[in-house]
Amino acid sequence: STKLRKHIISPYDRRYRAWEIFLILLVIYSAWICPFELAFLRYLSKTLFHVDNMVNGFFAIDIVVTFFVAFLDRKSYLLVDDRKTIAVRYLTSWFILDVCSTVPFQYISLLFQKHGGDLGFKLLNMLRLWRLRRVSSLFARLEKDIRFNYFWTRCTKLVLVTLFAVHCAGCFNYFIADRYPDARRTWIGAVMPNFRAQSLWIRYVTAMYWSITTLTTTGYGDLHAENPREMLFDIFYMLFNLGLTAYLIGNMTNLVVHGTSRTRKFRDKIQAASEFAARNQLPQQIKDQMLSHIFLQFKTEGFKQQETLNGLPKGIQSSVANYLFFPVVRNVYLFNGVSQNFIYQVVAEMQADYFPPKEDVVHQREAPTELYILVSGAVEYKLHSNGIEQVQGRAYAGDMFGEVGVLCDTPQPFTISTTELTQILRLRRTAFINIVRGSIKDGTLIMNNLLQKL
Amino acid sequence: STKLRKHIISPYDRRYRAWEIFLILLVIYSAWICPFELAFLRYLSKTLFHVDNMVNGFFAIDIVVTFFVAFLDRKSYLLVDDRKTIAVRYLTSWFILDVCSTVPFQYISLLFQKHGGDLGFKLLNMLRLWRLRRVSSLFARLEKDIRFNYFWTRCTKLVLVTLFAVHCAGCFNYFIADRYPDARRTWIGAVMPNFRAQSLWIRYVTAMYWSITTLTTTGYGDLHAENPREMLFDIFYMLFNLGLTAYLIGNMTNLVVHGTSRTRKFRDKIQAASEFAARNQLPQQIKDQMLSHIFLQFKTEGFKQQETLNGLPKGIQSSVANYLFFPVVRNVYLFNGVSQNFIYQVVAEMQADYFPPKEDVVHQREAPTELYILVSGAVEYKLHSNGIEQVQGRAYAGDMFGEVGVLCDTPQPFTISTTELTQILRLRRTAFINIVRGSIKDGTLIMNNLLQKL
Amino acid sequence: STKLRKHIISPYDRRYRAWEIFLILLVIYSAWICPFELAFLRYLSKTLFHVDNMVNGFFAIDIVVTFFVAFLDRKSYLLVDDRKTIAVRYLTSWFILDVCSTVPFQYISLLFQKHGGDLGFKLLNMLRLWRLRRVSSLFARLEKDIRFNYFWTRCTKLVLVTLFAVHCAGCFNYFIADRYPDARRTWIGAVMPNFRAQSLWIRYVTAMYWSITTLTTTGYGDLHAENPREMLFDIFYMLFNLGLTAYLIGNMTNLVVHGTSRTRKFRDKIQAASEFAARNQLPQQIKDQMLSHIFLQFKTEGFKQQETLNGLPKGIQSSVANYLFFPVVRNVYLFNGVSQNFIYQVVAEMQADYFPPKEDVVHQREAPTELYILVSGAVEYKLHSNGIEQVQGRAYAGDMFGEVGVLCDTPQPFTISTTELTQILRLRRTAFINIVRGSIKDGTLIMNNLLQKL
Amino acid sequence: STKLRKHIISPYDRRYRAWEIFLILLVIYSAWICPFELAFLRYLSKTLFHVDNMVNGFFAIDIVVTFFVAFLDRKSYLLVDDRKTIAVRYLTSWFILDVCSTVPFQYISLLFQKHGGDLGFKLLNMLRLWRLRRVSSLFARLEKDIRFNYFWTRCTKLVLVTLFAVHCAGCFNYFIADRYPDARRTWIGAVMPNFRAQSLWIRYVTAMYWSITTLTTTGYGDLHAENPREMLFDIFYMLFNLGLTAYLIGNMTNLVVHGTSRTRKFRDKIQAASEFAARNQLPQQIKDQMLSHIFLQFKTEGFKQQETLNGLPKGIQSSVANYLFFPVVRNVYLFNGVSQNFIYQVVAEMQADYFPPKEDVVHQREAPTELYILVSGAVEYKLHSNGIEQVQGRAYAGDMFGEVGVLCDTPQPFTISTTELTQILRLRRTAFINIVRGSIKDGTLIMNNLLQKL
Repeated sequence: STKLRKHIISPYDRRYRAWEIFLILLVIYSAWICPFELAFLRYLSKTLFHVDNMVNGFFAIDIVVTFFVAFLDRKSYLLVDDRKTIAVRYLTSWFILDVCSTVPFQYISLLFQKHGGDLGFKLLNMLRLWRLRRVSSLFARLEKDIRFNYFWTRCTKLVLVTLFAVHCAGCFNYFIADRYPDARRTWIGAVMPNFRAQSLWIRYVTAMYWSITTLTTTGYGDLHAENPREMLFDIFYMLFNLGLTAYLIGNMTNLVVHGTSRTRKFRDKIQAASEFAARNQLPQQIKDQMLSHIFLQFKTEGFKQQETLNGLPKGIQSSVANYLFFPVVRNVYLFNGVSQNFIYQVVAEMQADYFPPKEDVVHQREAPTELYILVSGAVEYKLHSNGIEQVQGRAYAGDMFGEVGVLCDTPQPFTISTTELTQILRLRRTAFINIVRGSIKDGTLIMNNLLQKL
Repeated sequence: STKLRKHIISPYDRRYRAWEIFLILLVIYSAWICPFELAFLRYLSKTLFHVDNMVNGFFAIDIVVTFFVAFLDRKSYLLVDDRKTIAVRYLTSWFILDVCSTVPFQYISLLFQKHGGDLGFKLLNMLRLWRLRRVSSLFARLEKDIRFNYFWTRCTKLVLVTLFAVHCAGCFNYFIADRYPDARRTWIGAVMPNFRAQSLWIRYVTAMYWSITTLTTTGYGDLHAENPREMLFDIFYMLFNLGLTAYLIGNMTNLVVHGTSRTRKFRDKIQAASEFAARNQLPQQIKDQMLSHIFLQFKTEGFKQQETLNGLPKGIQSSVANYLFFPVVRNVYLFNGVSQNFIYQVVAEMQADYFPPKEDVVHQREAPTELYILVSGAVEYKLHSNGIEQVQGRAYAGDMFGEVGVLCDTPQPFTISTTELTQILRLRRTAFINIVRGSIKDGTLIMNNLLQKL
Repeated sequence: STKLRKHIISPYDRRYRAWEIFLILLVIYSAWICPFELAFLRYLSKTLFHVDNMVNGFFAIDIVVTFFVAFLDRKSYLLVDDRKTIAVRYLTSWFILDVCSTVPFQYISLLFQKHGGDLGFKLLNMLRLWRLRRVSSLFARLEKDIRFNYFWTRCTKLVLVTLFAVHCAGCFNYFIADRYPDARRTWIGAVMPNFRAQSLWIRYVTAMYWSITTLTTTGYGDLHAENPREMLFDIFYMLFNLGLTAYLIGNMTNLVVHGTSRTRKFRDKIQAASEFAARNQLPQQIKDQMLSHIFLQFKTEGFKQQETLNGLPKGIQSSVANYLFFPVVRNVYLFNGVSQNFIYQVVAEMQADYFPPKEDVVHQREAPTELYILVSGAVEYKLHSNGIEQVQGRAYAGDMFGEVGVLCDTPQPFTISTTELTQILRLRRTAFINIVRGSIKDGTLIMNNLLQKL
Repeated sequence: STKLRKHIISPYDRRYRAWEIFLILLVIYSAWICPFELAFLRYLSKTLFHVDNMVNGFFAIDIVVTFFVAFLDRKSYLLVDDRKTIAVRYLTSWFILDVCSTVPFQYISLLFQKHGGDLGFKLLNMLRLWRLRRVSSLFARLEKDIRFNYFWTRCTKLVLVTLFAVHCAGCFNYFIADRYPDARRTWIGAVMPNFRAQSLWIRYVTAMYWSITTLTTTGYGDLHAENPREMLFDIFYMLFNLGLTAYLIGNMTNLVVHGTSRTRKFRDKIQAASEFAARNQLPQQIKDQMLSHIFLQFKTEGFKQQETLNGLPKGIQSSVANYLFFPVVRNVYLFNGVSQNFIYQVVAEMQADYFPPKEDVVHQREAPTELYILVSGAVEYKLHSNGIEQVQGRAYAGDMFGEVGVLCDTPQPFTISTTELTQILRLRRTAFINIVRGSIKDGTLIMNNLLQKL
């Protein structure tokens, strides 16, 4: 939203983002075509030649564009839009590599030879793979973007890496066989003596088949290295595969552990509560309350307002509490007429909780330690005497309970239990008394409100 | 237990649960037979045809039944039994897929052809696999059900997934070979030239053998892809296997880590305590007390009443404490005659602990910070003077100790140590003094009780 | 150490432990010989026959002995030595299986046939593998015994499980081949047509070679299933291997994660401290103090007396504190003449810390919050004024510092820093003041001691 | 930096470190050449013979040098430079093994035979591998050195272990084949009948190829064991591989889990905050404040000054706080003229926080609980009244806010929010009041300063 200098593009600009996505598609194309051209296409067709040049052109444009894109300074966290600073930063970082990966070597090779089949230039072409850094930084960004599922982002990345490794190794292995003097003593020639005469499709599928057979360590053995050159390549590929497989498994383990941790914690809690109830032979009613409470916690992990809030600084906590609870607290009868300042201080000390149906919030005869305001749902007042339980009344959203105990310092007169899913604000007695002490006028108003009600 | 409208079935109804389990069995049958029919049975036998139709019939019935099953609303956590809401919900979610997976395509294909061997209809038949979502949701439920062991539930799920993958891949690979024009250039035809003449059993076992050899990456190589079509299928199957294997290992690691964490923590604690004792050259007696305490903690993880309780809201905590400790505390001599309200408040502040035999609970000359009530087990009073230790008395379940120190604010006169496994309630001095201050009458009674005893 | 009834053996008795170890060795022999006899020995040699019977005899003796071994009750944690209870417990648990695994089936088979080569009896012989439960329970015990390294205990267990699986599968696979009618169409017969004529050693090694090749999923393919019977066995073996491999990897991951956690935590701390120092451009001296402190913490994890103590109940904490600190604190000049009770209370509030050389313990002008007693090592008093640092004195083991600040409530007059590795007891000012207030006589003595010194 | 006795070398000496690095290079050479000589070189060339002797010579020198190198005592953490202690320690630990691994067995073997090709002496030569302990201890040190990336240190170690295992196994397998009487029945002879006539390069590559094919469990099967001797070696190698692979995967999992934990925690926090905002329909402005705060926390993990400081002892904390905050606090108008002691006490209680731009630090009408000093950045004072927000002023580095509320105990008069990345020192009201109470003169000065400003 901040304004940048003229002709300078923000890296967060929508059009620039689209351009980046477009380049990523070209990168994927480059990553696939580069090894493929090296291995299977002795001579490039005209169409492919032009497509390659066009792709190079787009990356050349991007090099120019980068000189006009602002960047985020790592120290001040501000966008830098000074053209000179941008240029210096780019020139001293990736500029040279970007240029190298864009130079049309095939074009240059034509100046020396006719068909662009020169090996050296072909290998220089592999510099294009430098462009893959864009994909890598895209994924680093996606992993931090909660709009995308972490599990699938990570899996996609791993699948792409694996496919790229398979493709490269397959192409390179074919490349070695293709250049080997004795065609019959190559991995493909041993089973397909005239392999060069086969269709491109068959050769490519066979190369991929060999590559994936080796990567997954299946190793049927129908295709295998036949000469030292291939053996050497195989040795390096298998060593790489060992690392890649371990990396894949490590990542999957990480995702599985992360993905199941909630369920496991839930099970552990339920188990502990059940065992506790069984060992102490608690009555069924208390056991049900325990289990349904843990179940609600699990289902509504998001409801944990308090925990999320506690991680934030005090300023934001106040903003949120005011926005959410101020309207509720102001309309409670007890705070009728008190000053706004007083209510602000009360709200800042409030804590919100959810209770499942049929749970006891307060127990008869309990010491009064908290004050409660109902935000949603409903509760019942129950009186236990001589073993008989009588419902004495009900309270709904906007009502308050426990205030008599807190203000008069007497044990709770009723057991209060929820009848449905209920959100309740709690205020500790000590905090409340402190606030009241700080403002005697409001304290008098509150006592009047209480007396009027009684 | 809540009443639903007429003709509406609760999803928790026993008979409905049984019907679901019955359907799951049919799903497993479907999952096995669908790929099998596709690959091995060119023409269905009459029996199988009728069995398939019957199975479809049951799923058709379930579609109708679903319109009469209440569901749990995700927001209010209440069962919705309104027929219209149920219908709308089902029609907008899985209805169409459920219907598609139930249409008897084999029947329809008979209208067009004679033997129902048409490939298109056979592939449409694979839509039945959609039914597997039922198995998936069953396992999601089982994992949260503590009546079933997590390790084995999870393992069963993984084994079923693996078996299904093996079965499908084996069938599909045979399917490809079966349809390939040149039977000798197929994976099975290369070693079994007249494979179509072999018995169904041999062909099925061979297909499964190939499939599992590939999935586990054993890859003997006796059976392997012979033509591009099979290679292509193999490539995808091996890629899938890579993911599946990583997923299996990830899950197993997760289970192993979770399963051994208790033992590891125990070892770490014992190790730290032993090292501590060795470094400080503690006498054997203190070291034994330390180790036996840690050992008891490990053995009786379930005994950790306090931790389980602390995770629950205050209301439930009071319920449990009252149920468990009220009868014990009321009968202690010190609280003879005091009001119920007083005892309720005392109970709410109590903490329960277990002590192994021969552990010192209180030390002579220690500052009095807590009051103790014996729930079970027994303790000895010991007097140390001039290096001699004399047993002065014993206390049993229902007795109290430490009250003199707390009420008269003098150091503990005795060392008190357990003689067997003992459960003790503790009450902090400050909490107790606060309760006493709030009710002077009860305080006087307590002092009288104490004086009478002394 | 507790006395048991006559003729009842304690499970912790040394001789009984030795007998158990002896049986474990026999179990390992049984586990190896059972599958081996089944597969490779059509007719048992006389020697082997007698050895087997002797082994069975020992296990028969153990069945009898078990009726005389006390056991630990899971509820009361006491040894039960009542002969009837022991008998009931054994008869209702493992008695029948123990007997079945001890019956000499080979002997019985001789009554029916001549050479004991009957298949049914041979399979019954496999019941002996039930004895393996002893190995399993041995490892469960070893894992909790800190005298044995967790990593190697666990690894040994996994290696034994793997070897047993390899041995069993190898034997069983040979067993299948041996009984197959067409010897040339078996996994071993295909490469070794007259395999039955080969030496036992060659056949056993070949079977093991096949087994391990399959288990590790290497699958060279030189030996592979040739008929449906072998394929079927292979399918089950490979499925089992998938699980076993995942289990091995899961365990190894668990051990690696556990084993490297300390180093990783240390690195994280050092890294955070270094980055902190670099960012804030702290002087080298402060940075060195930070790093050497973290380094000492890492090296002397065992020194963390406080953390280990805090996990123990109060009674044990007092025992340890008294044993360790009482002699030190009593001899400090400030507590000259005060009552033992007073010192006991002071000791209970003490905390012990280690400081590396050249670390500042107290800063000049700091508010006095703690009192320090040197247990070992030495410190220097330094005075900073006008940017010059002057050493004013030294203190050694048994000396005290910070007491003037605490008792007179003035800022610390000196910077006090260690000159070597130093152990220091700390006592918080508030705790000390509270203790002094509780005993005015001792307070006066302390003030006198302080005045005399000044 | 501490001085050692004459002729004693410090283990931290730069030249000694260089000598150690040089030896490590020789160790790597030894580790490679030892198995290679054993397997491939029947007769050593003269050059190689001399090189080996030279290498041995360097290690012999090191044995002598070790008698002059001080060592760090594990108990006192001091360097021991007593020559006798050093000698005793070395002689009782690794001396004998070091000597054994340095004896020139090849030389000795020449006394008995002509070409040094005797098998026994060759195997004795393998004792040189003992030298690898140096590499192992180097890596143990590197892992704790934060100048080296943990991931890459660990990976390098694993790669080296893997390469060494591959090299050894390949050499040893060739050694077995080379010595086998029937060359055609060896793993290499079966496919390369005249393998002994092949060039060293081809034989070595083939051996490595077989070795890595087996280690990665690819197992093409083109090269495989042909006789019981090779099978036996293969069995042990594959068992070892199973362990090694599990160890590699375990390590990789460990590294991946550690490496992604920060991102995962960040995602969890962002997710919780977003869900919280969505559920409570918080206004966009508050949501933005929440997310940008979490984002800043993630980006500036290093900024967490407080957490790093809290892990350190009080003495170091004071040093750091004084160094960082004393100059800032002294120049604040409120503390104009107060004593240095006062400021020292204020600084010790200060906490530093970073706030992203546009975050509310203090809310209008909030209870005054803290005092704020700006270290860097800037804030705006805003007044909300009747729904209108007015900017009343700004404060910059060195300014203070919230002091009126704290000293006069009135609610905050303004909302104060940052305009850029801002570092703020916070001081809790209670701590400040306590300090003021302790020094009345300074308190009067502070009130005067406040009055002058108002």
